[in-house]
Amino acid sequence: MKTVAYAAQNAASPLAPFAFERRALRANDVAMEILYCGVCHSDLHMARNDWDWSVYPLVPGHEIIGRVTDVGTDVTKFKTGDHVAVGCMVDSCQHCDQCHNGEEQFCREGMTLTYGSPDRIDGAITHGGYSKHLVAREEFVLRVPDGLDLSRVAPLLCAGITTYSPLRTWGVGPGSRVAVVGMGGLGHMAIKLAVGLGAHVTVISRSASKEADARELGADAFLVSSDERAMEAAASSFDLIVDTVPVKHDLTPYTPLLDVDATLALVGQLGPVDEVQTTPLLMGRRRVAGSLIGGIKETQEMLDFCARMNILPECEMIQMDEINDAFERMERSDVRYRFVIDMASLALVND
Amino acid sequence: MKTVAYAAQNAASPLAPFAFERRALRANDVAMEILYCGVCHSDLHMARNDWDWSVYPLVPGHEIIGRVTDVGTDVTKFKTGDHVAVGCMVDSCQHCDQCHNGEEQFCREGMTLTYGSPDRIDGAITHGGYSKHLVAREEFVLRVPDGLDLSRVAPLLCAGITTYSPLRTWGVGPGSRVAVVGMGGLGHMAIKLAVGLGAHVTVISRSASKEADARELGADAFLVSSDERAMEAAASSFDLIVDTVPVKHDLTPYTPLLDVDATLALVGQLGPVDEVQTTPLLMGRRRVAGSLIGGIKETQEMLDFCARMNILPECEMIQMDEINDAFERMERSDVRYRFVIDMASLALVND
Repeated sequence: MKTVAYAAQNAASPLAPFAFERRALRANDVAMEILYCGVCHSDLHMARNDWDWSVYPLVPGHEIIGRVTDVGTDVTKFKTGDHVAVGCMVDSCQHCDQCHNGEEQFCREGMTLTYGSPDRIDGAITHGGYSKHLVAREEFVLRVPDGLDLSRVAPLLCAGITTYSPLRTWGVGPGSRVAVVGMGGLGHMAIKLAVGLGAHVTVISRSASKEADARELGADAFLVSSDERAMEAAASSFDLIVDTVPVKHDLTPYTPLLDVDATLALVGQLGPVDEVQTTPLLMGRRRVAGSLIGGIKETQEMLDFCARMNILPECEMIQMDEINDAFERMERSDVRYRFVIDMASLALVND
Repeated sequence: MKTVAYAAQNAASPLAPFAFERRALRANDVAMEILYCGVCHSDLHMARNDWDWSVYPLVPGHEIIGRVTDVGTDVTKFKTGDHVAVGCMVDSCQHCDQCHNGEEQFCREGMTLTYGSPDRIDGAITHGGYSKHLVAREEFVLRVPDGLDLSRVAPLLCAGITTYSPLRTWGVGPGSRVAVVGMGGLGHMAIKLAVGLGAHVTVISRSASKEADARELGADAFLVSSDERAMEAAASSFDLIVDTVPVKHDLTPYTPLLDVDATLALVGQLGPVDEVQTTPLLMGRRRVAGSLIGGIKETQEMLDFCARMNILPECEMIQMDEINDAFERMERSDVRYRFVIDMASLALVND
């Protein structure tokens, strides 16, 4: 199927229109017209080859909402017209222990990413959601529950599941004491989801100026990390800290805030963090962990949970040709809290 | 009770004979003659005020084996002549959640250390096991099971429980894949205890020269950390890594060796470790944690386990007046694997 997209041709080029072929439907494939695509900070990293493994042309986008246009002969879960979603991965081996446990993101053979990964069958490099159409195997297509505002669902597919998964892994529920560090795309979802799960949620920020926004998002409390007395008073008071900071930073202020046996879960930074002070870890059997998106089953659970609780990201809708400006604004943290591209703004080349 | 000890009078002085009074027996106190005392690296740190909170005169020693000489009127668990042990702590609040859970090392009010801590009742600074006698409350006195070689039990009270506790916390049992980093006092106990629990135990070391010793201690496998191919082949292959390295070091070589959801438990270093690479943490939901000795109930469990399995430290017996040489040798890692002081070598001042 012929389609169009916005792609980076190399690490230095802005995103620009790009026409290519989506693969012909396989028996277990679902074809969709993309309606909305969220803009994740990793799209920017990948477009610019910040992680040194980008393949060009590169079509970013892994927060994808679409409408099914066709299904392969073996597809049973979806039919034409269904509202569906695709997140960060589109395939995995499906036979290892992790895949069997519904943790395809930790597939022993490596998951196939939604863009920039070789397809497991034909080896073609996958292209993401900054495009008009997508074809993906049924097992990696999510159902968008009725009743959710379609124009705001997209960021759940990465920012949502990335913060929902650690909340579930570490057993957050009514009465849990959760802190969120960082209040961007991930952090604002962590607040909403933790509140939705019944936790008492504290936002920790360097700046007191963010308190009003934090409370508007549902936070119960606000802690300014430069306020030494407040930080000392908060020692040992959290069951889980979700650290969404996407750059190298220092965990020293946060680990003493964990209760005995509690965990600080890093979800935003791929790369180093500063030297870690072990004393707070030993003195309370505290833990520092990483967490990566979530499995397909958990992603569907998260979508269903958000529909039930009416939890949606705060979005700013943009047109496809505004993407390069959006990247620049994202770099300045000038977005509340996630850009979503209205894919109707991307005309078919042959229209 | 008048007693004698070896004490540091300041951060620069060698340990030297020191006479002082042990407190009169309280109703729930046990008095003991000390038979053996292990030499822990932290004794050296404390004698030299490396952590900046030592109080002088300082009598080190928290791996204590003794024989009961008297008991207070309310003591029910011990009688004169019993073989007993005291570890790193001699008191805690006894009413917080952590104390109730048998995790006195994480007491909300802070445990009372065996030496260098103010007593909870009279405020006197506690003195440790490099002395002829000890008085401690019953709840913090352990029973030494019959059948264990008394001259080798002492190091279990710190090196033993410090490595046993993480093995139990993270569920090590038959078939568990455990790696041990560092092969000193702690590391050699981690190997023996993990083997005793039925785990498959790998020692990770910078030097291939330690393989024979590791295997003699019971290790099933040996991994040289500078062997890049072997390290790559060992990716995701451990359920728990017990990291006993007592100095600042880099965790980067070790975290990718953890399986999904597995933990690297730091037990040896109080202070910083190098910058931590988060990618292996995120990509496998891997965890870095600390662990600190263990509670009293778990310490008794460990002693009973060691008696059942006949697990004992490798010890080098020294006389009390050899302690300053022993400190120097310990600094050069010139000990296999733990010094134990024969307290019969410390004559009473009035003998």
